[in-house]
Amino acid sequence: MEGDPALRLRVFDLNCWAIRYLSKRRQERIRLIGDRLCQEGFDLVLLQEVWSEQDYSDLKAKLGGCCPYSHYFRSGVIGSGLCIFSKFPILDTLLYQYSLNGYPYMLQHGDWFCGKSVGLAVINISGIVFNVYVTHLHAEYCREKDAYLPHRVVQAWELLQFIRHTAKAADVVLLGGDLNMHPQDVGIRLLRCWTGLRDAFTETKHFEGCEDGCTLIPNNCFTVNSELQPFPLGIRIDYILYKAGSGFTVRCEELQTTTGTAPGTDIPYSDHEAVMATLHVQRTGQAAGVTPSTAVPALVEVLSEARTEVRVGLQAARRQRYSSGRMALLALLLLLLQAAAALGALAGLAEGQPFPKLSFALLAFLALGVLLLATGLHLFHTIEVKMLQGTEEQMRMALGVLQEHPGRS
Amino acid sequence: MEGDPALRLRVFDLNCWAIRYLSKRRQERIRLIGDRLCQEGFDLVLLQEVWSEQDYSDLKAKLGGCCPYSHYFRSGVIGSGLCIFSKFPILDTLLYQYSLNGYPYMLQHGDWFCGKSVGLAVINISGIVFNVYVTHLHAEYCREKDAYLPHRVVQAWELLQFIRHTAKAADVVLLGGDLNMHPQDVGIRLLRCWTGLRDAFTETKHFEGCEDGCTLIPNNCFTVNSELQPFPLGIRIDYILYKAGSGFTVRCEELQTTTGTAPGTDIPYSDHEAVMATLHVQRTGQAAGVTPSTAVPALVEVLSEARTEVRVGLQAARRQRYSSGRMALLALLLLLLQAAAALGALAGLAEGQPFPKLSFALLAFLALGVLLLATGLHLFHTIEVKMLQGTEEQMRMALGVLQEHPGRS
Repeated sequence: MEGDPALRLRVFDLNCWAIRYLSKRRQERIRLIGDRLCQEGFDLVLLQEVWSEQDYSDLKAKLGGCCPYSHYFRSGVIGSGLCIFSKFPILDTLLYQYSLNGYPYMLQHGDWFCGKSVGLAVINISGIVFNVYVTHLHAEYCREKDAYLPHRVVQAWELLQFIRHTAKAADVVLLGGDLNMHPQDVGIRLLRCWTGLRDAFTETKHFEGCEDGCTLIPNNCFTVNSELQPFPLGIRIDYILYKAGSGFTVRCEELQTTTGTAPGTDIPYSDHEAVMATLHVQRTGQAAGVTPSTAVPALVEVLSEARTEVRVGLQAARRQRYSSGRMALLALLLLLLQAAAALGALAGLAEGQPFPKLSFALLAFLALGVLLLATGLHLFHTIEVKMLQGTEEQMRMALGVLQEHPGRS
Repeated sequence: MEGDPALRLRVFDLNCWAIRYLSKRRQERIRLIGDRLCQEGFDLVLLQEVWSEQDYSDLKAKLGGCCPYSHYFRSGVIGSGLCIFSKFPILDTLLYQYSLNGYPYMLQHGDWFCGKSVGLAVINISGIVFNVYVTHLHAEYCREKDAYLPHRVVQAWELLQFIRHTAKAADVVLLGGDLNMHPQDVGIRLLRCWTGLRDAFTETKHFEGCEDGCTLIPNNCFTVNSELQPFPLGIRIDYILYKAGSGFTVRCEELQTTTGTAPGTDIPYSDHEAVMATLHVQRTGQAAGVTPSTAVPALVEVLSEARTEVRVGLQAARRQRYSSGRMALLALLLLLLQAAAALGALAGLAEGQPFPKLSFALLAFLALGVLLLATGLHLFHTIEVKMLQGTEEQMRMALGVLQEHPGRS
C-alpha cells in the first residue's frame, strides 16, 4: 500500500453568524459565502451558526455542483446551527447534544436555546474513512468573570469523549468549529491532550492570514471592538484539528484565514474569519503507525485543572439550586397563608372586609408566579448539579484508570 | 490464538422499579436484590430504575466484594436510573441522552423527568474489550393508542446509531435493559437488524424461567394486571442482546428469568422479572470472522416501517406546535386589548369605572399565565418537530446509502 498517491483535501470552516432578524446583512453574506465556496471548490465545508434552514437550503442549492452531499444537524429550539457540505458521499451522521449549555433565563445570551451540539459525519474518500466533526461551544461573553466556564469545560469533555468513543475505527479524524476557547485555555488543552488531535495552525508548513491565526479581529466591521480590547491583534477561537489513525499520516500543507472584508466587497463574510486548510493524507502501510500519545503526567495535570473548574461550577450550581428552592418554598408559604386568610374571612372569623380584594388577588397571583418560576429554576439547577457531578465523577474515574493503567490512552 | 479457553460471563439485568416514595417496599427489595447478586456472583450487573442515589450507594456497599467496580449514570432531573456493577475494571463511560422522551406536562407518566438515556461502559476482561450498554426506553402505557410510539422509535434509532458508532473497535457488544418493546415491535426489529445484535432468549441453548421469556407477568404481585389483560402469559420487554466483533464468537449457554416471588420471601425483586444470561466468549483467531449482516431488503423494509412511525409523530407534533402557538397568540391579543382598554380608561376616554377592577386584573393574570404556558409548549413542540424531522432525514439518508452502497452495513 505504501507509495499510494497522497490525498489532498481542502477544508473550509466558518462560524457564519447567520441569525435571522439579528445578524447584519445576513442574506448578502450567505450569498458571498456561497460564491466563495463555489469558486474555490473545497472538498469539505464545516459551517456553524447557520440558524435558518432557508439559508442552509440556499447554500445547498448553490453548492449542488461542487459539494453535492450535505447534512444539516437539527437540535434545540432553533437548531444546532451546524451543517456540513462535502464533495464525497456522507455515509452516516450522528448528533450529540451537550448536556449543559448555559441558562434559559439568560435571554440576552441565548446559547441555551441553540441546543449546542457536536455533529459527526462519516465520509469515505478514496477508501479512507474520515470521521468529520463539526461543533460550536458556549460563547464566553466576559473573560474576566466567565460564568459559563464550567459549562464549556463540560462541553469540551463531552466532545473529547464523543470523539474518542466514535472515532476508533476511523482512518482520519477531523474537527472543525468555533470552540470559543483561546489556544491555551484549559478546555482546548484537555481536548487536544486526550484525543491526540493536532492544531492545523501550529502544525502547518505555510500560513497566510490574520496575525497569530486570529479569527475574531478588530479589523472586522461586525466584531464588537470593546470585547477585543485586551487583545489588540484579536483572538483565535475557530479551529481545524486533525489526527491520523493507525496506518495513515496527515500533514497540514497550508492554512489560511480570511482577513476581514471579502474580496471585491465592502463587508466580511461573518463576524468571524474563515479557516481554510489544505491537508495531505497518506497511507503509511504500517499498521501501528500511531503517533505517540501525550505523556501521562501532562494528561493528569490538564484533567485535574479541568476537574477544578467543574467543581467550581458545581458549587455555584448548588448555591443556585438552594436559592431557587428556598424562593419556591417562601412563595408556597405565602400562598398557603393567603388561602388560610381567605378561608378565615369566608368562614366569618374576621369582621367586615379584612383586606382589599384587588391587592389580595394580585399578591396571590404574584406568589403563584414566583412559585412556578422558582420551581422551574430549581428543576433546572438540579439537572445542572447532576450533570456537573456526573462529569466530575467521569473525570475522577479517568484519572484513576490513568494512574492504574498508564498505557491505556 | 485459536484454542484460547472460552470466557464464561454471567450477566444480570433488571428494571428495579425503585422510585422513592412511590414504589412499594422499595428498600426491602433493594436489599433482596443485593443479597441475590452477592450470592450468585455475577460478572456484570445492569440495572435500570435505580432512581435514588442512596439505593445505588447501598448496592455499591453490598456488592463491594463481588462487583467492586460500578458506575451510576446521571441525567435529567432525577437521574437516568441506570447503573452498572462489574467484577472487572470499568475503563471508560459515556452517556447519550435521547433527544425525545415524552412530554413534561404528562406528569402522571413522568418519563420526561427521567432523562432517559443509554449508558456505555468499556470493560476489558482478560484482554477482550467489551462495550456494555444499559438503557431504558419510554414506557408504553396504552398499546392500542400509543402516543409515545414515535418517541420510542426515535429512541431505538438513536440507540442503534450510538451503538454502531461507538462499538466499532469493541470485541464484544452487550446490551441490557428495559426496551419497553415486545419482541416483534418495529423498534426492536430495527435495533437488531441494523446492529446485528442477537437476542439471548432466542439464541440460548437452555432456558429456564417464565413462559416465552416474559419479564412482566401476571403472577408478579406488583404488576398492574389490567395492563396485561390482552397477554395472559405476560410480555417480554427486558432483554439481553449481544454481538461478537471480528475474531470472536459469543454464544448464550443459558438464560434464566426470575418467576415472581423471590426465593424465601413473599415479594418479588421488582415489578419486572430479572434476566440472567451465561455467555461463552471465544476467540476464533480469524480476523474477518464477522457474522453475515442482515439482507438489504430486510433492512430497507424495517427502516421504512420505522420512518412511517416517525412521520406520524411528526404530523402530531406539528399539530400541537400549531395549537400551542395559536393559543399563545390569542392570549397575547387579549393582553394587548386589556392594556389598550386600561390606557383608555386612564386617559379618561371612558366615563366612570368601565369594568370591575378585580375581574379585570384576574383576567389579565389569566391571560398572562396562558401566554407563558402556551409559549413554553410551543417551544417544546418546536424542539419535538426538529428532532423528529432530523431522525426522519437520517433515516432517509440511511436508506439512500443502503440502496447505493448495499455492502456498507
